[in-house]
Amino acid sequence: AMAAERSLAMATCTAPVNIAVIKYWGKRDTDLILPINSSLSVTLHQDQLKTTTTAAASRDFTEDRLWLNGAEVDVGHPRIQACLREVRRLARKRRGGSEDTATLSLSYKVHVASENNFPTAAGLASSAAGYACLVSALARLYGVEDELSEVARRGSGSACRSMLGGFVQWQRGERPDGTDSLAQQVAPETHWPELRVLVLVVSGEKKPVGSTVGMQTSVETSPLLKHRAEVVVPERLAQMIQHIRERDFEGFGQLAMRDSNQFHATCLDTFPPIFYLNDLSRHIIALAHRYNAHHGHTKVPARTPRVPRHRGPPQVPMSPPVPPQVAYTFDAGPNAVIFMLADTVDEFVEVVRHSFPPATNGDQFIRGLPVGSAVLPQELVGAVVTEPMPGAVQYILHTKPGPGPQLVDDPSQHLLGADGLPRRRA
Amino acid sequence: AMAAERSLAMATCTAPVNIAVIKYWGKRDTDLILPINSSLSVTLHQDQLKTTTTAAASRDFTEDRLWLNGAEVDVGHPRIQACLREVRRLARKRRGGSEDTATLSLSYKVHVASENNFPTAAGLASSAAGYACLVSALARLYGVEDELSEVARRGSGSACRSMLGGFVQWQRGERPDGTDSLAQQVAPETHWPELRVLVLVVSGEKKPVGSTVGMQTSVETSPLLKHRAEVVVPERLAQMIQHIRERDFEGFGQLAMRDSNQFHATCLDTFPPIFYLNDLSRHIIALAHRYNAHHGHTKVPARTPRVPRHRGPPQVPMSPPVPPQVAYTFDAGPNAVIFMLADTVDEFVEVVRHSFPPATNGDQFIRGLPVGSAVLPQELVGAVVTEPMPGAVQYILHTKPGPGPQLVDDPSQHLLGADGLPRRRA
Repeated sequence: AMAAERSLAMATCTAPVNIAVIKYWGKRDTDLILPINSSLSVTLHQDQLKTTTTAAASRDFTEDRLWLNGAEVDVGHPRIQACLREVRRLARKRRGGSEDTATLSLSYKVHVASENNFPTAAGLASSAAGYACLVSALARLYGVEDELSEVARRGSGSACRSMLGGFVQWQRGERPDGTDSLAQQVAPETHWPELRVLVLVVSGEKKPVGSTVGMQTSVETSPLLKHRAEVVVPERLAQMIQHIRERDFEGFGQLAMRDSNQFHATCLDTFPPIFYLNDLSRHIIALAHRYNAHHGHTKVPARTPRVPRHRGPPQVPMSPPVPPQVAYTFDAGPNAVIFMLADTVDEFVEVVRHSFPPATNGDQFIRGLPVGSAVLPQELVGAVVTEPMPGAVQYILHTKPGPGPQLVDDPSQHLLGADGLPRRRA
Repeated sequence: AMAAERSLAMATCTAPVNIAVIKYWGKRDTDLILPINSSLSVTLHQDQLKTTTTAAASRDFTEDRLWLNGAEVDVGHPRIQACLREVRRLARKRRGGSEDTATLSLSYKVHVASENNFPTAAGLASSAAGYACLVSALARLYGVEDELSEVARRGSGSACRSMLGGFVQWQRGERPDGTDSLAQQVAPETHWPELRVLVLVVSGEKKPVGSTVGMQTSVETSPLLKHRAEVVVPERLAQMIQHIRERDFEGFGQLAMRDSNQFHATCLDTFPPIFYLNDLSRHIIALAHRYNAHHGHTKVPARTPRVPRHRGPPQVPMSPPVPPQVAYTFDAGPNAVIFMLADTVDEFVEVVRHSFPPATNGDQFIRGLPVGSAVLPQELVGAVVTEPMPGAVQYILHTKPGPGPQLVDDPSQHLLGADGLPRRRA
């Protein structure tokens, strides 16, 4: 037993979820996971949403094994194997080929256990946090300190953005081998302390088309996606980086909404079409626009509309878009993510509560960071809350931008015991 | 009384509805109604859907007046005035300025009555048929025989396509004055006798964003619409004309579905986004794809996928799209229009009846051309009919391509009496 314990090395990390505001959809290389366009995301705080992963290696392990949320799963998945192989390759490179006895042998089998602090069924894109955490824990285990977003990308494209905190760009890169397709921090999580995020977790919807298959069908059939990737995204990415640097919520929010809508537009332009937005999503989108319109017409002076330059004959001017107070974004699933500044949270949460009255678990309806109470002015309720849909939103998670993967020093937090098997969960 | 009767001239015409298979969305000139792209439609048969319009002129009329479906409406609408003005201008030009007593005076006021043989509330895009019929009746009244699609276009863009039967192209034109923005017949209604059309009239949905406002917002805010109009539609239009000439239902149907989806994608790319498809539309779309997949996998050999040429690195091949048996298209409203060949109608109607069981009026569920009975094989029901939605489809209208506007010779069919006022309706 003593010998086995001495030969057991273990590392535990946590990693965050991220929410894209310039969306990733479509690969130019499906094996290396190289995207057709760059993307940009906000890393969410791990106090609310995180994955924890423990990786262990021992000469006594007879095979690689993996447990997700306590249940053993097949470790042979090509993407898991790619991450394992790449981390070991970096470790080997680092050691310059010498295998001294003080370092962990790369030939040992590994055991990995991974857990989310949120229900997988909530559809909160756990694969990005999961692969970022796997790569972080393995890298720590083997003492690798290189650029790791390239490795995480091999697990799941968006996982590379979860390797950094705050505001993160995934540069598409140009090289065929993917060595320049990396995540890069645009600004740390401390850059914009007022920014807040609400995740509206919606009630049961069947599993939609998976994103891996869906995006590849889009690449093959949507002429609009090709134009988006080649022409629209490069412009938008530069704009979004500027909005973030300037902490310009109006620009950030409007562009986030437009880009979410355009991503879903390219899904609809796919053949056969892919739908991730449903009637509830439409209700949430309409609610956000009504809320913004109400405040735009009552609180904020009208501005010049920010519309794309349009060549051709002059057009009838439309009423200028109002500066948004809240901005939605939807990924390849039914949940809504809504950005706002801290001083909007209390009121908007109350608007959501009015619009989607909690069904049974009213006390658990708001989770995460504290939310203050708000009394809604009657004219706000009248203008914004139309046709309440009881029970449609399961709960609201209140969170904010946060840091990248963290090392867990406390050995009591390891998910694997001294025997290399998952500890009984609390 | 004799004098008044002799001075009364009257003409009655009927005009058809049309369904675009390459969609029109967006104007480059909102006054002249010049589109940003050419479009192509199928004119539907007037035995099922038609507008009837009587136009009368008399020296005894003291003002222009207009009745729609029996109710008097404001004749001052700029688009109605544009049609009146343009027809009178053509008449004046024709007469070379000479106003002889045998011809109808252009200074007389007109009375116009117009009726649809289908409920306006059914959302069957009655404005195209309405303006085509108005222009046809006025032209007949004044003895004008010129190219009239340019005049109908001034009433409603898509009305120009209702000026011809069969398969009709609306060429966007290049001139700023719109004189080359005209409808042109691609093939007459007799060209493809097997083609059939089902209109699925869905149950009450609130009035969505009007197309005039909606398309202008799209022109101003959607980068994808601009690309569609400039790059995608010109290619698709040429392809669609060829599919029609070759009576290639596979090509026609797949391109119609793709173009409908792309139109709705550009609506979603509009800011704020416009939604015309709802969860019921998604159900109908999914039903059509399941039906096609079922027949594609059981009856027809696999073909090379017809996907857009894609520059760039090679892609993972997707499973080839199956040759469609049915093809949906949706306009700026909730009804579905489904194209198919005659030998598919009986079975597909039965599939719709299984999927959307009629609520109360089961005997009126199928209207229009006769539909034979069909017994669905159990494996078809199992593969295609999932989650029936009782009452979601109000009725099915079975129709086919038909001719352009018709003159009504029988004076008993005039909608205005000898007094120039609407006759009591039957």
